This record gives sequence, structure tokens and C-alpha cells, in this order.
Amino acid sequence: MARLWNFSAGPAALPEEVLRQVQEELLDWHGAGCGIMEMSHRGKEFGSVIAQAEADLRELMTIPAHYKVLFLQGGATLQFAQIPMNLLGEGCADYVVSGSWSKKAIKEAERVAGKSRVRCVASGEAGNFTAFPDLAQAQLDPQAAYLHVCTNETIHGVEVHDAGILPTTVPLVADMSSHILSRPVDVSRYGLIYAGAQKNIGPSGLVLVIVREDLVGKAWPQTPSVMDYAVMTENGSMLNTPPTLSVYIAGLIFQWLKRQGGLAAMEALNIAKAKCLYDCIETSNGFYRSPVEKIWRSRMNVPFTLVRPELDAPFLAESKAAGLLALKGHASVGGMRASIYNAMPLAGVEALVAFMNDFAARNA
Amino acid sequence: MARLWNFSAGPAALPEEVLRQVQEELLDWHGAGCGIMEMSHRGKEFGSVIAQAEADLRELMTIPAHYKVLFLQGGATLQFAQIPMNLLGEGCADYVVSGSWSKKAIKEAERVAGKSRVRCVASGEAGNFTAFPDLAQAQLDPQAAYLHVCTNETIHGVEVHDAGILPTTVPLVADMSSHILSRPVDVSRYGLIYAGAQKNIGPSGLVLVIVREDLVGKAWPQTPSVMDYAVMTENGSMLNTPPTLSVYIAGLIFQWLKRQGGLAAMEALNIAKAKCLYDCIETSNGFYRSPVEKIWRSRMNVPFTLVRPELDAPFLAESKAAGLLALKGHASVGGMRASIYNAMPLAGVEALVAFMNDFAARNA
Repeated sequence: MARLWNFSAGPAALPEEVLRQVQEELLDWHGAGCGIMEMSHRGKEFGSVIAQAEADLRELMTIPAHYKVLFLQGGATLQFAQIPMNLLGEGCADYVVSGSWSKKAIKEAERVAGKSRVRCVASGEAGNFTAFPDLAQAQLDPQAAYLHVCTNETIHGVEVHDAGILPTTVPLVADMSSHILSRPVDVSRYGLIYAGAQKNIGPSGLVLVIVREDLVGKAWPQTPSVMDYAVMTENGSMLNTPPTLSVYIAGLIFQWLKRQGGLAAMEALNIAKAKCLYDCIETSNGFYRSPVEKIWRSRMNVPFTLVRPELDAPFLAESKAAGLLALKGHASVGGMRASIYNAMPLAGVEALVAFMNDFAARNA
Repeated sequence: MARLWNFSAGPAALPEEVLRQVQEELLDWHGAGCGIMEMSHRGKEFGSVIAQAEADLRELMTIPAHYKVLFLQGGATLQFAQIPMNLLGEGCADYVVSGSWSKKAIKEAERVAGKSRVRCVASGEAGNFTAFPDLAQAQLDPQAAYLHVCTNETIHGVEVHDAGILPTTVPLVADMSSHILSRPVDVSRYGLIYAGAQKNIGPSGLVLVIVREDLVGKAWPQTPSVMDYAVMTENGSMLNTPPTLSVYIAGLIFQWLKRQGGLAAMEALNIAKAKCLYDCIETSNGFYRSPVEKIWRSRMNVPFTLVRPELDAPFLAESKAAGLLALKGHASVGGMRASIYNAMPLAGVEALVAFMNDFAARNA
């Protein structure tokens, strides 16, 4: 069977070109006589893979030299705990709740640090997370150890397009899991950026942390060693065996991104893809509807509803039959969701839009 | 280039048959139109993969129904912290130190729980870890929350062949990272068994935990959610996105093991492989030497030294040229180490022995 258009929110589609390279090198990496996942992480071969991956990521994101790059395990969810364990010290932290993921982040911080040390300073929950909360109204703590935000909410499809709205009076910590590498970012605005790999980076089981070096070295003493940024920084992400296969695939993705022209080129493509899909929704005379306020609509995750809920089941069945996979919305939101990460070409979005237009015409 | 004989201690060689299946299914899993690593972990496809992996593992190891099986991240090193966080409660624990890995385990437990709550009851360090310490001499705490052992020390090549020597008066917790699935195990003797995947299970980035259900649910309340066995048990190892590609490959390994005849057949093969290699060492008239006392010699990790250290470099260069990879011993022990996990066939060990005999003859 051919590869189909895969709109999964994550784990998500990877570029076919990268998958073919993984396939080709799987049993014998560069003539080594075995695959990269069968080699010691301490050897020069894997050492070159992880060093190249970091160098390419630094180039792609223009990461300043005083930021550390870590390849870790446990996903963004473990970072929800790890961030307070590393950055909170004896202090408190402020959280913005803009959707399901930042809500999970604050709950986990409360779990490890106690509710009294974690504060929600703004929430979009009353509006069903259809907009990023207004931080101009928020009472921020100027003494907070950090301010936590999620700059793209995968489930609700709410994205911060202008990072200038995010205050930087205290270190800004951002969960960028579902839009990292989709656009240029001014890393220097942030104290820490983290992202689970399974959207724009590679297979699940890997989480990327980019942290300003002055924030490293403050972990609670009882923090497990592999969760202590200082320990992992000193050991080049290899205190213990890293997820070598995932790091290798992430490295291939970074090289693929460079071949595409880097993050500015990806942004232009992602703007075109998102415009194509939102235009379809907007011009459907109400047949399709985006729940998100226009200025907050995500380029990566596009939730939408159908005019009549009884059309959901036929839409899903017919789209799947048309080779359009994984369009069902998250259970907490309902309706549909098309995730159109870097690996989704414009042709895939155009195929979805053609189907949506046809489906609307047949069911209007 | 052909695949060569790979004696890496881990990440280690995987069965070629399994790698070819991964290769074939990488871009299109079972006609789904995308690879398994590109699908949601919440979908029925990956759901079937992880359920089958657990069922096959339960069958292979005859895991009783009152044991939970968890597929987690962070490696054995995160378990070193996670085990006290989950099992210690307000109590203390006893540790046996039989090599580098159990020494790391106790240090990490001390880090998260405090030195006063973790006790070393027996150590083989005075004898350079050439034998498992004598537990008959140990003063065990009958009130300990658990007794921790490492049943195969990867670096020192010390393996417990008779689990009957391990007391079960308190829950027995065993790090089996480097010999799990190499032989049948009476799971019911243990409170908890854990193993990093990168030796006998699959790619790194996955750690397996098999835990008796009465030990689940006692985690310290501030334990991060994904590290709480109770939370992960309730969520079928999927509170967050698991390392789906690694779980899938582990599942293929389990099916491969079943096709080989299961763990009794693997044990017979592993005995034959180990005998072949140790016989070569023993009959070399002192040219090769195993530092480990005979009854503790590991079937999986075979460290050995050469009669003259100046022969180390030519041995490594010539063995590599002969297609025998990764024979250098761990830095802390020196000399050579051949790791001969399940994926290494007898033919690979015979090729090594033929080289060793030839090298000895030429350099005697």
C-alpha cells in the first residue's frame, strides 16, 4: 500500500525521505557492520551522531552559545515535574493555563512542589481555551523562579504567534512540543524551551530541552541524577544510555530541515498550509467551523467542527477511505483535528481541502 | 558491507530477522499507510502492538497474573531512583553491591531517600567484584522495604545462576538488565524485576518493570506522575506517549524469542555459547584469563584479560579487522569483554574463539 496523508497529532507523520534513509541504514550504518541502534553510545560513531544533531539544531534555531541542549527521556510530561525540580529552588513559579497541556503542566508542578508554590496567573478555561489568556490583566510575581507557558496547545489549536506578548521579567519557560521547528524562534527570550519529539522532531521517547546555562545547577538535591540538568549537561546527555535510535532519527530530521531551507522556509510553507485549510473552513458557509479566535489559530493543529454532529461519523469514514488518516478530534474537544506539522506537504493539505469541499457540497 | 559479529555490551546486536521486519514495515505498518512510529499511541493499531508485546512477555517469562508489566522510559538508571520513590515509603532498604551497576543503584537510592534509609548489606568490592558477595554472612533487616540485587553485572561479568541464594524474606528487587530473557526465571520469587531494554529486549530508551501488585500504590506523593507505578499501571504504561518505536521492536523480539523455542531453548543456547568461550579461555595456558570466580561467571558478559597488556591494542585491531566488533573491556576493568546476548548466535562465538586461538598461537 502507498503512504497516505497522515494528520495524526502525535506521534505524527515523519518525512518519507528521512524514513527511507533510516530504512536503508537500519542493518548497517555507514558500513559499520551493524545498525546505529546496536552500537555503544560511548563509541565514536554514536558520539558523532549526537554531536552533529546538536550542531544542526543549534544552527537551525540559532541557539546562543550560553544555552545548553539536552536530549532526554520521559517526554514533556516528565519535564512538567523536572522543571520545578530544577528551577524552583525555594521559590514559587507562575503558570499560564491556555489549554489541556499547560493545565497538566501546572498540576504536575503542584504535585512535586506543593500547591502553595505554584500559581496560575491567567487561564483561558472559562472561554473553553479558544484564545490565549490576556497577560496584560495578569498579576505576575516579579520574584517568581519562572513563568511557564505553552506556546502551542496541541488539543485546542491555540498558538502564540507573537512571542512579544510573553513577559520576560522572570525566566520564561515554554512548552513548544507541537510547534518547535515550525518557525524561527528568538531563543534568547526564553530561560528554557522544551519539546517532546513526537511531532516535529522524531519518534516518541525523546524530549528536547534548551536551557540557559545560568538556570542549570539549582536542582533540589534529591532530584534523580538523570533528571538533574546539571548532571546531564556535564555528561552530554549521556549519564546513562540515551534513546540512541530516536536521537539518530531526530538528527536526520534536522538535516532534512536544513535541506528544506531551514526554519524561515518551513514557516513560509506552514503559513501557506494553514491558510489553505483555514480558508476552506472560513468559506464553507458555516459547514465547518473553527472554535479558535482568529489571531490565536494554530498553524500546526487545526481543530474544526461540522455543522451537524451526526455528520462526524461519515466524515471520518469517508476521509479515511479517501486516504486521509487520523482526523478525529481529541475526545475533550470533539469534532475533527488536522495536525499539519513540518512533515505534511502542501499537497496533503490540498488533498484534505478537496475532500472537505466535496463532503460539504454533498452534505450541505 | 555485510553484518559483522557485534559483541557490544549495550546498546547491543539485535536479531537480523527482527531488523529486516522493522525495515520492511517502517514506512507502512500492516498496510496502514504509515509506519507504527507515526501513529497515535491511543489508536487501536498501537494498542494491539503493546497488548501483544505484554502478552508475549507474560508467556515467555510465565509472569503470574498478580504481577503488573510496565513499559517505561529513563532506563535502569531512572529506576535506581524510582524504586525507592515507589517502594520505600517511610522505611529503609537493603542493597547488595556486586559490581558497578548495583553500586550506582545504591548511590542513587541514597540521593533520593537519604543515606540513613539505605544500607549496603554485602559488597564484593574488596575482591574487585570477581564474585557475588556471600549473603550468608549478611545481616539483613527483616523490616526492610526491599532487598535490592543486580543478578548480572554487565561490567564485571558476575551472574547469579542460582536464584535460591537470594533471600525472599522481604520483597526482592532485581536489576536484570543484562540477562533478562536469557534463561527462565521464577518471577514469583521477586517483588520487582526491572531491565533496561538495550541488551536483550530492544533499542535503548525503554525500560521494563515487572512488579507484584501489592507493591504498587505506595509511592511518595510528590513522585512525578510518570514515575509512579500506580499511575502508570492504571494507564497501561500510557499516561503520556510511550516510546512507541521501541515498544514495537521489543514486541518483535518477544515474538522472535517464541519462534526460537522460548527461554528454555535460549538458555540451552546461551550455556553452549558461554561454554565455548570460557573453554577457549581456560585452555589457553594462561594466554587469556577470566577474572571472575568460576561459579559466578556470566553467560552474557565475558570479561577477559590477555597475558601481556601490550597485546591489547593488536588484539583489538586484528579482531576488528576480522569482523569481530566491540571487544574492548569497560574502562573500569580493562582488557576485553565479549557480550554474547540472545541475538548472538553460536556461530558468532565460534568465530571469536577461532580468532582468539589463532591470535594466541601467533603471540604465545
